[in-house]
Amino acid sequence: MTHPSFKHRLYVIIFGTHTKAGRAFDIALIIAILSSLIIFVLESIPSIGPKWVQPLRYFEYSFTALFTIEYLLRLYCSPKPKSYATSFYGVIDLLAILPTYIAIFFPSASFMGVIRLLRVMRIFRVLKLVRYLQDSNILLRSLLMARRKIFIFFSTVAILVTIFGALIYVIEGPENGFTSIPQSIYWAIVTITTVGYGDLVPKTPLGKGLASLTMLLGYSILAVPTGIITAELSNEMHSHKELVKCPNCNQPGHDSDAMHCKHCGSELADPDDRVVTGKKG
Amino acid sequence: MTHPSFKHRLYVIIFGTHTKAGRAFDIALIIAILSSLIIFVLESIPSIGPKWVQPLRYFEYSFTALFTIEYLLRLYCSPKPKSYATSFYGVIDLLAILPTYIAIFFPSASFMGVIRLLRVMRIFRVLKLVRYLQDSNILLRSLLMARRKIFIFFSTVAILVTIFGALIYVIEGPENGFTSIPQSIYWAIVTITTVGYGDLVPKTPLGKGLASLTMLLGYSILAVPTGIITAELSNEMHSHKELVKCPNCNQPGHDSDAMHCKHCGSELADPDDRVVTGKKG
Amino acid sequence: MTHPSFKHRLYVIIFGTHTKAGRAFDIALIIAILSSLIIFVLESIPSIGPKWVQPLRYFEYSFTALFTIEYLLRLYCSPKPKSYATSFYGVIDLLAILPTYIAIFFPSASFMGVIRLLRVMRIFRVLKLVRYLQDSNILLRSLLMARRKIFIFFSTVAILVTIFGALIYVIEGPENGFTSIPQSIYWAIVTITTVGYGDLVPKTPLGKGLASLTMLLGYSILAVPTGIITAELSNEMHSHKELVKCPNCNQPGHDSDAMHCKHCGSELADPDDRVVTGKKG
Amino acid sequence: MTHPSFKHRLYVIIFGTHTKAGRAFDIALIIAILSSLIIFVLESIPSIGPKWVQPLRYFEYSFTALFTIEYLLRLYCSPKPKSYATSFYGVIDLLAILPTYIAIFFPSASFMGVIRLLRVMRIFRVLKLVRYLQDSNILLRSLLMARRKIFIFFSTVAILVTIFGALIYVIEGPENGFTSIPQSIYWAIVTITTVGYGDLVPKTPLGKGLASLTMLLGYSILAVPTGIITAELSNEMHSHKELVKCPNCNQPGHDSDAMHCKHCGSELADPDDRVVTGKKG
Repeated sequence: MTHPSFKHRLYVIIFGTHTKAGRAFDIALIIAILSSLIIFVLESIPSIGPKWVQPLRYFEYSFTALFTIEYLLRLYCSPKPKSYATSFYGVIDLLAILPTYIAIFFPSASFMGVIRLLRVMRIFRVLKLVRYLQDSNILLRSLLMARRKIFIFFSTVAILVTIFGALIYVIEGPENGFTSIPQSIYWAIVTITTVGYGDLVPKTPLGKGLASLTMLLGYSILAVPTGIITAELSNEMHSHKELVKCPNCNQPGHDSDAMHCKHCGSELADPDDRVVTGKKG
Repeated sequence: MTHPSFKHRLYVIIFGTHTKAGRAFDIALIIAILSSLIIFVLESIPSIGPKWVQPLRYFEYSFTALFTIEYLLRLYCSPKPKSYATSFYGVIDLLAILPTYIAIFFPSASFMGVIRLLRVMRIFRVLKLVRYLQDSNILLRSLLMARRKIFIFFSTVAILVTIFGALIYVIEGPENGFTSIPQSIYWAIVTITTVGYGDLVPKTPLGKGLASLTMLLGYSILAVPTGIITAELSNEMHSHKELVKCPNCNQPGHDSDAMHCKHCGSELADPDDRVVTGKKG
Repeated sequence: MTHPSFKHRLYVIIFGTHTKAGRAFDIALIIAILSSLIIFVLESIPSIGPKWVQPLRYFEYSFTALFTIEYLLRLYCSPKPKSYATSFYGVIDLLAILPTYIAIFFPSASFMGVIRLLRVMRIFRVLKLVRYLQDSNILLRSLLMARRKIFIFFSTVAILVTIFGALIYVIEGPENGFTSIPQSIYWAIVTITTVGYGDLVPKTPLGKGLASLTMLLGYSILAVPTGIITAELSNEMHSHKELVKCPNCNQPGHDSDAMHCKHCGSELADPDDRVVTGKKG
Repeated sequence: MTHPSFKHRLYVIIFGTHTKAGRAFDIALIIAILSSLIIFVLESIPSIGPKWVQPLRYFEYSFTALFTIEYLLRLYCSPKPKSYATSFYGVIDLLAILPTYIAIFFPSASFMGVIRLLRVMRIFRVLKLVRYLQDSNILLRSLLMARRKIFIFFSTVAILVTIFGALIYVIEGPENGFTSIPQSIYWAIVTITTVGYGDLVPKTPLGKGLASLTMLLGYSILAVPTGIITAELSNEMHSHKELVKCPNCNQPGHDSDAMHCKHCGSELADPDDRVVTGKKG
């Protein structure tokens, strides 16, 4: 029963994304994840949760059972079970089922908060969706290319909010709600990101002047990350186009979703493989 | 009376946009739509609506009659009435006149809400305005080219607001206004989009820390869609320019609103036709 | 006394920007405008205005006298006084001095509101500052090139806020503060632009869902104008660079603030003249 | 003891960033600065500050002593001590230690506010972090290249908020919270930057109309600085790439973080030196 071909076929279905069965499995998985997420959300609504405790719990148990079977099958059919179990998605897959088991064996109320927090991690599984879309590679690579510029940008923002927070703390003081520097830094972040809750606003003319300066600065430095991402993305899209070459006439410059060569009309390589080639070349 | 040439002339006026009569008809139609919209808005104002019920209703009836005649004429002169009736604009045209007739025959108060909702659809008709402007093609094509990147972006935002919503629900809890996870997700959306109503704000230091993280994240991921659209738009504008070739010297690279070739000065094709050629080429 | 050369020298000082005297005049004018503006602002502050009525009025009269002399000199030395008087800046110059004279001859309180409003126009004069900076030409031309795309964008926004305003009016209704459709459209604008005052917020779950949709939409369409401006600006900057040619080696591609040719080192034309040449060529 | 080689070795460690010891010193310095900053922040928290006055003060004294030694060493080993003492970082280094000494010798309460304000300047020292990252050069040069466009943009924003502030002051008046023109300009800044605190909102229909206009304008001019930065950054990144030439095959076009030539594989110059070369070339 456990001859290699069955194991491999299972591997192709569960881990693969190119076969019909593999895609069907992925779609079923996504539906299951989203359903279990909806149950998690419904539990928290005061007008629904307490009334439907029992049915929601049964659904929760069913999904946990399903995910447990899926996790065991992944462990079974993976060529290297250990490296799967310790991989990012392997840990997430385990974290997605553990909380329910912990809740069964340790049903004490004090544990619930932390358990619910772990449950949220289940959402990350949906991120696997992104794997199927080659465009996400361009987006991710652009962000990676720009990571140092983004780090510099965030350091600058961190310095600015500390300075503006300390200044508003000195100017407005605890009598106007700015009770401490962390509280004032929170105000500076709310202001510089243009969120502007309005729960903490300057009352003195000098404070309002400083707030105006903070806003205008936030307004203009908002332009910097956009500029960085755009410049990298436009760079990446151009070089990606250059990497896609026609297997017949060898001409580069095809769009990432092109199926046929625009010069000779012959079929291009599968988009997913194409990206891999692009990385190697 | 119903000989083909009259039908065709009517078709050119009602559906066409190139003749003088066609343009005049379109402008008259836009004025009629905007006027009927203003009446709809005026009805809702407490200090105007109840006082002027009768005259507003008469105006409403007149516009509905006008739009009904227009709809029947469109059906009559269209070469394929069925495909018009089932097209996007055909359905909108019907939905624009139906509510008034429903309100006449079923004047019960309970129906009013839904009817008013249908009436709003009338606004979509104004969207046809966009058809006359060739630049909208570049905008639309850029958005279409970027649709997968935008989908990935929105999936990421959806996952982020769910995670941040669940976290703030656990941290702040119902005693600080975060009564359920959907409510907390609503807060996360309000924060990540930098809207910041201020109707729901974190009260605890940990909650404020999480809110700061959400804001800074929202601030930086705001850069991603802008980068996507800009890169696609700049790509599309460049390729569009390349598509516009001079019929005399065959040189490409003309601006979308250029009327004469910048190299030899000979007249270029009509912008509207040019776009069509661009699509075919 | 009124021989042509004096008139011309006056013209060069008042209208010109290239001579030392011309620049000095412009700087003096900007200081005078800003000073009269500060007086206007000081008058409105409750703790300053009523106390210092008399000195502020004397300052106001002095500046008005100065601006009147300037206006008469401009009329006198302009080669075509009529075309100056009817030009945009000519009308602004007149509107900048008229309110004070009207206030002297018609000192009735009811007129004050309108007069104060006219006075604000004086600020536009500062816009002339922009004339001296050649970069503003690139900015303006980019905006002009993108004017049709911006128009389409604003039409789309106008349609969206009307639809969302009408929908929230139906969903939330007058009992939650959405008293009329214009009021609801105001809410939609506050939300879609991510301003989020918080004076009008949805209370029902359905309303919160619609608000979330409006925010996410606003968040993503914010990317469109940025994309348009960036693409046009980057286009314009590139073509501007191409227009700047070295008078010695005739090589193009110099930065807008370059003083020397980067290939042979010979001096480039004055930036201001360079832009003019760029337009002609 | 004070022979030149020791002085020079100290200089390389304290001012240099290329040797192992130099990097270790910089990291230690950053940790010290951040620690002294955390103490400064902790002092301001009402539930921590008053309780732990004594230990916090001891930490503060220790860090001040450390920074004083560092300052004296910098003065000692610098080849030109005077030019260091009067440089930007020299002044910041002095301002970082002075407040504590002033607080010791003049412990009167009234001085504390100003002293605390000076202390904030210490944060600037962290800015030196940025020096180590070559990407910051591209960011800074882009901002410098765009400085005139940014100035024009801010002048336009300044004029707009003055006009909109004056208009809303006339429309809404002191009875709706718009007590003076500076207050109204503050509202205009809060609105145009899309911060939207909600502490000051229009109440009249006309005021709401003007607010809507302000928001939509703010929404669209937000695109202008982004466009400027993006265009300059994309320009700068391209020209930077061109400046990085392979020492073996002399081919340009390498990424700023590339370590090997993408054509012949030979090692490229150190990124930091490379930037310097780029400036010279």
